[in-house]
Amino acid sequence: LLVDLDVVEKNIQKMAEYCKARGINLRPHAKIYKAAPVFAWKQIQAGAVGITVAKLSEAEVLAGGGIKDILIANQVVGERKIRRLVNLACYTDIKVAVDNLDNVRQIAQMAVEIDTTVGVLVEVNIGNNRCGVEPEGMTLEFVRQILGLKGIKFRGLMGYDGHLAFHEDQDERFRLSTECYRRLVATRDVLLNAGIDVEIVTGGGTNTYRSAGQVKGLTELQLGTYIFNDTTYFDAGLQEFGCALSVLCTVISRPQRPGAENEAILDIGRKGISTIYGFPRVKSLQGEIYSMPQEHSRLRILDPQVNLKVGDQVELWVGDANGTVNFYDSLYAMRGDRVEGVWDLPGRGKIT
Amino acid sequence: LLVDLDVVEKNIQKMAEYCKARGINLRPHAKIYKAAPVFAWKQIQAGAVGITVAKLSEAEVLAGGGIKDILIANQVVGERKIRRLVNLACYTDIKVAVDNLDNVRQIAQMAVEIDTTVGVLVEVNIGNNRCGVEPEGMTLEFVRQILGLKGIKFRGLMGYDGHLAFHEDQDERFRLSTECYRRLVATRDVLLNAGIDVEIVTGGGTNTYRSAGQVKGLTELQLGTYIFNDTTYFDAGLQEFGCALSVLCTVISRPQRPGAENEAILDIGRKGISTIYGFPRVKSLQGEIYSMPQEHSRLRILDPQVNLKVGDQVELWVGDANGTVNFYDSLYAMRGDRVEGVWDLPGRGKIT
Repeated sequence: LLVDLDVVEKNIQKMAEYCKARGINLRPHAKIYKAAPVFAWKQIQAGAVGITVAKLSEAEVLAGGGIKDILIANQVVGERKIRRLVNLACYTDIKVAVDNLDNVRQIAQMAVEIDTTVGVLVEVNIGNNRCGVEPEGMTLEFVRQILGLKGIKFRGLMGYDGHLAFHEDQDERFRLSTECYRRLVATRDVLLNAGIDVEIVTGGGTNTYRSAGQVKGLTELQLGTYIFNDTTYFDAGLQEFGCALSVLCTVISRPQRPGAENEAILDIGRKGISTIYGFPRVKSLQGEIYSMPQEHSRLRILDPQVNLKVGDQVELWVGDANGTVNFYDSLYAMRGDRVEGVWDLPGRGKIT
Repeated sequence: LLVDLDVVEKNIQKMAEYCKARGINLRPHAKIYKAAPVFAWKQIQAGAVGITVAKLSEAEVLAGGGIKDILIANQVVGERKIRRLVNLACYTDIKVAVDNLDNVRQIAQMAVEIDTTVGVLVEVNIGNNRCGVEPEGMTLEFVRQILGLKGIKFRGLMGYDGHLAFHEDQDERFRLSTECYRRLVATRDVLLNAGIDVEIVTGGGTNTYRSAGQVKGLTELQLGTYIFNDTTYFDAGLQEFGCALSVLCTVISRPQRPGAENEAILDIGRKGISTIYGFPRVKSLQGEIYSMPQEHSRLRILDPQVNLKVGDQVELWVGDANGTVNFYDSLYAMRGDRVEGVWDLPGRGKIT
């Protein structure tokens, strides 16, 4: 797995500048790079206020890497995990999403036991229909029930419009996403009108950052994929961010059967490249991947000038950065043709 | 990730007995369990003659685990990997698939340099159209060119009918697969008629073991998935093997929006369960997974008696054992409800 550092740094800079110009905080999502602190620090250096993660185990990795402000944009449930969560809160400004009263009470109780406080953001369902309390009145009622608890501190609201990420009509995506985040801000207004302070209103995803970014009242964006981008996001309208991730494969066979003159077999299959959005695209030559079992890829060479030999290398663009990074324990950080480093992905496999 | 040891042991026993009754050797494929020696040893204890792997890196794991007879059913190319291969051959009976003359010459030369010998099996394309030399005359010509080389020893032929694995008509699958392996045996006959000794004729996959197993002249079967099975193979006609792999998820949210009374959100998504054959099936209750982003699963509960709370656990059958095992560094070996061990999957991520 290769990452183009020049592209990464441009992507980080571009999003940092966008947020600065909009006057909105940026809290990049580290799930895309499986919580590798090296990328988080690059984002913070460019102005990010903190980091978002999907899982408690990723938060632990980042806290261990020195990140001091972490949002777990997900529910942390059960005694064993909450114990880990409150421990983390002793040395990191940790915020966790909540949408269930028993869960909040358990967090509060276990935090009190070790004399710490955990920040909580109430997740509001703004249309994604996954986790989250229903907006406005239901959220107000929920917040009222947790406001008095010791051991937790209500920090604000979170919402996500993941159901719109790949909406094909970009104008419609913008309109619907704007509506979603207005609903989140309307919910904040209900709380404000009830005299409840709401410090953070957070949401957004790379594919709707332009809509989320212009909704007044949202205080921060939690964007992930933009740092690497991938061909799927690129094709879905994210052309302002370069694709940074590729996989370097080796030709292991040149079939000699009649009709297969332009075919080559590569040594990496679905166990090393996520295909949930389709086959990867060929970067290093004119060609296409037309079949991928678990351990191999079948390549059709489209440029008659190219004569690949067994042992030659072929570079493939990653079509699903999120899923592909999760296959690798480390990646090669490239500066042009030079390897600048081999960087650990310490959160790989931390899926709960 | 959980594995049901009673089911695994029954599956191992059943396939061992099948092969014994047919008088054919069994060389189970370790890619399904990412070369964890504990499973390989169970298979060898039940009578397997050796182990098959997909990648050199998996062979290294098994050799380190004490397995003495390993087939790399794939091409190993390039100087760096061949150096590792010939080192492995110094202390293990290693056999590697070949289909390219330059590659064989390089293996031979590097083996001679350190005074060892690598066994080679010529891969024959019997219809899968991936790697492999074309059958009969082309293979004879290829074998003649490598027979005299020092540093390698020609051990026989390999073929695979992976293109038929999920052929929907089971009778047709049987017929076509039988044809494929007859082509492999016909190629052996061409070599025998030319006075060339062919010790091993190897092939097969779990989904065509019944056809491959009854082709006279095949000396061994290299079957993988049968040890765990999964719902996809089970549905495709492999009902004689029990499904052994499941993933234990936790309910992290019970949405309260109208109409979602029977829905629950689980904490594991596509980063922990391979969905290349569709969503996983629910094992522990009547329900269905109807959506899976990277970090979550959406569950619809179909039994009105079930009232899941946040923190409750839900067990999902694995639909793609091969891809799912590759997400985990270890698995829980279950004997009924007891954890008998937490076993490493040391080949996880070894994809080249």
